[in-house]
Amino acid sequence: MPKITPKTSAQGFVAKASQTKDLAVTVHRYEAGQVHQTEDRLAVEAPLEIRLCSPGEDERILSITLRTPGEDDELAIGMLYGEGVIVRADDLLDVSHTGPAQGTEGLHNRLRVTLRRSSRVPLAELERRGISHAGCGLCGRTHLSAVHHRCAQPLAMRLRVPLAAILVLPAQLRALQQQFAISGGVHAAGLFDANGRILSVREDVGRHNAVDKLIGTQLLSQGLPLNDHGLVLSGRAGFELIQKAVVAGAEVVVALGPPSALAHQLAQDMGLTLLGFASERRVNCYAHPERIVGLLPAAGD
Amino acid sequence: MPKITPKTSAQGFVAKASQTKDLAVTVHRYEAGQVHQTEDRLAVEAPLEIRLCSPGEDERILSITLRTPGEDDELAIGMLYGEGVIVRADDLLDVSHTGPAQGTEGLHNRLRVTLRRSSRVPLAELERRGISHAGCGLCGRTHLSAVHHRCAQPLAMRLRVPLAAILVLPAQLRALQQQFAISGGVHAAGLFDANGRILSVREDVGRHNAVDKLIGTQLLSQGLPLNDHGLVLSGRAGFELIQKAVVAGAEVVVALGPPSALAHQLAQDMGLTLLGFASERRVNCYAHPERIVGLLPAAGD
Repeated sequence: MPKITPKTSAQGFVAKASQTKDLAVTVHRYEAGQVHQTEDRLAVEAPLEIRLCSPGEDERILSITLRTPGEDDELAIGMLYGEGVIVRADDLLDVSHTGPAQGTEGLHNRLRVTLRRSSRVPLAELERRGISHAGCGLCGRTHLSAVHHRCAQPLAMRLRVPLAAILVLPAQLRALQQQFAISGGVHAAGLFDANGRILSVREDVGRHNAVDKLIGTQLLSQGLPLNDHGLVLSGRAGFELIQKAVVAGAEVVVALGPPSALAHQLAQDMGLTLLGFASERRVNCYAHPERIVGLLPAAGD
Repeated sequence: MPKITPKTSAQGFVAKASQTKDLAVTVHRYEAGQVHQTEDRLAVEAPLEIRLCSPGEDERILSITLRTPGEDDELAIGMLYGEGVIVRADDLLDVSHTGPAQGTEGLHNRLRVTLRRSSRVPLAELERRGISHAGCGLCGRTHLSAVHHRCAQPLAMRLRVPLAAILVLPAQLRALQQQFAISGGVHAAGLFDANGRILSVREDVGRHNAVDKLIGTQLLSQGLPLNDHGLVLSGRAGFELIQKAVVAGAEVVVALGPPSALAHQLAQDMGLTLLGFASERRVNCYAHPERIVGLLPAAGD
């Protein structure tokens, strides 16, 4: 358990020990015409449940956010300040992790903020903003098991994509990003087939929205599940994006940025082929390389 | 009003007309040693309230998301699919915009999804996940006025930063990004002073979390409001990030990526100096250039 000592110093409330910020994974890397196995380090992404306690009110879940562990107290305090719940350190009586440490890294993923006096913003107002809710169904289960539960069946294992087709996806996506060409301020998600041909692109200021739009249009055109197809993403591949891809049945995800450690674990568990840092000259395969033709030695080699 | 015609085609439910995806703004651009005024186009970012109607249940707000307008039906449908509320197009009876068009662009920012039968996921479960709430305080006011309300006083006008100091912020931030150096998968927010010296950096897989952490640590060390200081952000500057900066009293925000149109408008309204696309050789100033020394002609020129 972290030390529970209310104080108002720059060091914050919560002991910072044993907060793992990155994890090593083994990847298949294609670079300069060669494939080799190497180690890559991924940013840890883990849910933090922030609970709010104030005098005379029931304890409430204020937010569940996917974050890099460490500085959890600063994160919660900054969020509460931004929402107007607190305006100075003196408003805080205690900020401490609660509940047992989770997973092999012993992460504390639940934080309780206790106010010295009532919230400066009525809890009803926070509820109206959609950032406070009384229920709690997440505590007893992990994000990962929740996704397992939502995927009725394992991903298909039909899609095979040549490595050469993967390498041209980034340039192809960029060429199709109409809004990005205009403003440079939007993300994109594309749907591609076994030849690496991009069939549909959606753009949005929000990465998640671009994927939701792409999957929404596939639902309307009877294109779900996305068996035999993959998604290419303009940015990083966080947990929620991989979750959306897996639920929709995509067999491969290619991201131009890196995945998080949690996204990597979900892809491993669910049988999704996950590539990151994709460019014309280089790509890393983080999970299930067997769908990418030319990435693994052919049988008998 | 968009056409309200239930159908299940690839074209979707909602008429796509008059959805503005980008807006032109005038910027001061520094490039190749010269400052000139030019036009830049920014991605539109606007809130979409997604409401869910199903037989025998009260209408509920399922989500309020900041999105690029257009394909609102696909966005809502993809999100509902991801959450397991629907699994096929036949689950949908109607998807249509509701309420009056807003703003000069006549955007429709409220969408009602009517299910043909009860949700496949109990509404109580959606509430537990924190994505459904019955209250509604947002409909009658815009995001912008909500921020005005939260900022007790206008931003200070004390900070002056030389343009040369702005140009070295990106390299300075990168050098301080310990986790980015390891995994490449995290965003960063830094606090800088009038000399462009970065005093504190926080990193996170979530852009918003990095800013919350930075502001949280400043609250703990009695550093708020951030008068005389600015924030440098590793990515794009969306509305919510600018909102956090303004509420905390930062006078300048420098982003390595572009701002959204809504972030630009908020900065204009609130007196925040906003720069984007910052690099060693180039930067755009989108709002209130008067705090950047060397960007405007000196008085008397």
